[in-house]
Amino acid sequence: MNAAPAEVWTHPVVTDPVMGSIGFLNEVMSRYPDAISFAPGAPAPLFIDAFDHEPHIRRYLDHLRHDRGMSDVAARRSLYEYGPSRGLISDLIAAALARDHRIEVPPRAVVVTVGAQEAIFLALRALAGTGDHIAVAHPCFPGVLGAARVLGLTVVPIDVTASGPDLRLLDDACGRAESEGVRLRVCYAAPDYANPSGTRMPLSARRDLLSLAHERGFVVLEDNAYGFTVDDADEFAPLKALDDRTSVVHVGTFAKIGVPGLRVGFAVADQPVRGGGLLGDHLATLKSMVTVNTAPLAQAVVGGLLLQHGVSLRALGREKGAFYRRNLRLLLAELDARMPRAPGTSWERPAGGFFVRVKLPVAADEALLERSASRFGVLWTPMSGFHLDAEGDRVMRLSCSYLDDEQIRSGVARLAALVREVA
Amino acid sequence: MNAAPAEVWTHPVVTDPVMGSIGFLNEVMSRYPDAISFAPGAPAPLFIDAFDHEPHIRRYLDHLRHDRGMSDVAARRSLYEYGPSRGLISDLIAAALARDHRIEVPPRAVVVTVGAQEAIFLALRALAGTGDHIAVAHPCFPGVLGAARVLGLTVVPIDVTASGPDLRLLDDACGRAESEGVRLRVCYAAPDYANPSGTRMPLSARRDLLSLAHERGFVVLEDNAYGFTVDDADEFAPLKALDDRTSVVHVGTFAKIGVPGLRVGFAVADQPVRGGGLLGDHLATLKSMVTVNTAPLAQAVVGGLLLQHGVSLRALGREKGAFYRRNLRLLLAELDARMPRAPGTSWERPAGGFFVRVKLPVAADEALLERSASRFGVLWTPMSGFHLDAEGDRVMRLSCSYLDDEQIRSGVARLAALVREVA
Repeated sequence: MNAAPAEVWTHPVVTDPVMGSIGFLNEVMSRYPDAISFAPGAPAPLFIDAFDHEPHIRRYLDHLRHDRGMSDVAARRSLYEYGPSRGLISDLIAAALARDHRIEVPPRAVVVTVGAQEAIFLALRALAGTGDHIAVAHPCFPGVLGAARVLGLTVVPIDVTASGPDLRLLDDACGRAESEGVRLRVCYAAPDYANPSGTRMPLSARRDLLSLAHERGFVVLEDNAYGFTVDDADEFAPLKALDDRTSVVHVGTFAKIGVPGLRVGFAVADQPVRGGGLLGDHLATLKSMVTVNTAPLAQAVVGGLLLQHGVSLRALGREKGAFYRRNLRLLLAELDARMPRAPGTSWERPAGGFFVRVKLPVAADEALLERSASRFGVLWTPMSGFHLDAEGDRVMRLSCSYLDDEQIRSGVARLAALVREVA
Repeated sequence: MNAAPAEVWTHPVVTDPVMGSIGFLNEVMSRYPDAISFAPGAPAPLFIDAFDHEPHIRRYLDHLRHDRGMSDVAARRSLYEYGPSRGLISDLIAAALARDHRIEVPPRAVVVTVGAQEAIFLALRALAGTGDHIAVAHPCFPGVLGAARVLGLTVVPIDVTASGPDLRLLDDACGRAESEGVRLRVCYAAPDYANPSGTRMPLSARRDLLSLAHERGFVVLEDNAYGFTVDDADEFAPLKALDDRTSVVHVGTFAKIGVPGLRVGFAVADQPVRGGGLLGDHLATLKSMVTVNTAPLAQAVVGGLLLQHGVSLRALGREKGAFYRRNLRLLLAELDARMPRAPGTSWERPAGGFFVRVKLPVAADEALLERSASRFGVLWTPMSGFHLDAEGDRVMRLSCSYLDDEQIRSGVARLAALVREVA
């Protein structure tokens, strides 16, 4: 082999800062494996350790035999053969959405995807063309910003208020797109405890967003990843349940209410499309050109999980939602008790989701993260990758999901020591 | 709900004929479930029926404990938690490539993907920018054409001769791109029994392609899906094994040598990139914005399969390769024995792969497929979705992989009856 082959040209999107921020965080985590990490938005290890895929696969196979009349051989084959791009468990997910939220869509509107990320990716590709704009509630989960960049779409940040994306700004952005001869096609929003803002949209704001979507002709891409952390008694309807004009594509995931390693999510897309059929058909077609289909073995595990919980996403997520609410309350109480009241230091008080943002009087950048890891043994997520402006430069995100009580207490004490030193 | 919500705008790529052709075929297959189908390029059911994922998962977990020193808990968690975008089994795949083909790359050059399709998708995105051209050996697997369209790339078809893509045409295409102020960045080719052409590139043609790639500065995207159907004694080195200037990204899949429902493939990308690192790092970053990672449970099954076969892709595929060669010989013998020698009717004689193309004196289009299904009970794949010109309009593709001997015999008899009627 030659000693130094020429560098290959690569697409500039790969070296975009949004892409890089997650890489740096992972790299720091691997160098400080013993640090207490508030970084991962991953499920608690106790749920992972209690999990076993095999009984769920068996339950799903029983369902295929008894409820769908499949032979033993046909049921087993469905685990291992190519399957439809739309997925194997669209019917179970559609039934769960109807039961839980009165979201009534035909199963063919539901496309099973490789996590919510692929659902977002496919929806953005289906709904926006070259030069079109997509709006995002801002700050925004980097997965959405990254997907948009991979697809060459123009992202318009819409600042989030206490009740969700600022609809006046969103309306202006629609007008601006039109004046440039393009369209604002999509607005991405997570109405229930968005990552990272922790914002929850009141019912009136949900209705107003849908009215604007109808008026301006854009689709709302609703991400429901953290909806399960809402207490049943306190629930507002998801946007999709309020959607009487097919303005909403709803995206869900089994990463948090199931386990993330299954890589199963879904998109609900009942929009009529030209030529007949539904947007779900188009998403399935696009999926056939990206990943062909979602691993049937993983879908079978999810199918079994749903069947175990009476074909209800809500029932599947209930115990876990309560657990994370408790973790979040503990994290907030520890911050209240231990963090120095330094000028410029503050934090928010979301009632659900996984995340608390802490504002610092200094830059919460890679240098501070390195120092935090090496000298204080505590990790967190810098917010710059979530922002398209400089507003996130002094903000760290803490996740309550992955740590136990003792780790939350010690971790906050370590953070407090860091803040005492730098603030 | 309103009776008739407005149609939503969708990206024109979704209604592209390449996308539609596969949909129609699936639809016909679902309407004629009892027809003998030469359409699917799927593994033989006997291999599927003999498969069980569970022993392979156990073997992979044993490997993590014994060979990598992981605790029980850590090994089990790796099945269910988020994992690295690059994948869990890059090291096993790198070891297998070194053992089988002396392809020596660091494990970080190997990215585990949701089938070969995602590997192709990510490589095309990483390697080609807006306006850039990609060349494809033509006719071409529709998955590649579709991925390029989803990404907005310009596809340049390079006609295939008996020894692979015509290098004179490819050289011309490079010059034409440059004269238009863009670059031809990638040439997709499957040197061992391409789908659908069945072409196998001689060793000299492989070397000539690599020389041209180096001279013109494009990357060869090598698809090795059917390489396992080559008899060991008769093997030519894969392009990647001949690649002394990192001109080749090699793509493989476990769909045929394992089972397709796992949805596990991989890309081998050891190209240096600007800023340090390898193209594999960039593919992993891109993957984090498309599917995050490949289901660890499915990777564990594949890891166990590799371990069972001495960490060798060749050993894993050997028995299956011999089976499909036999099926292919039977299909060709039956065609020779039964098909009418009508003017304009002919077929090719590949020595490997899954496919035989049959040229007809009439259009092998959706109408003929419908007639073939309804009146003769036999299905095949129309070739129009594989062509960017009209050359495929009278060609059907027959796959030998999914049928048993009796089905191959009956199926060819039915095809012969169809041809007698239309030719």
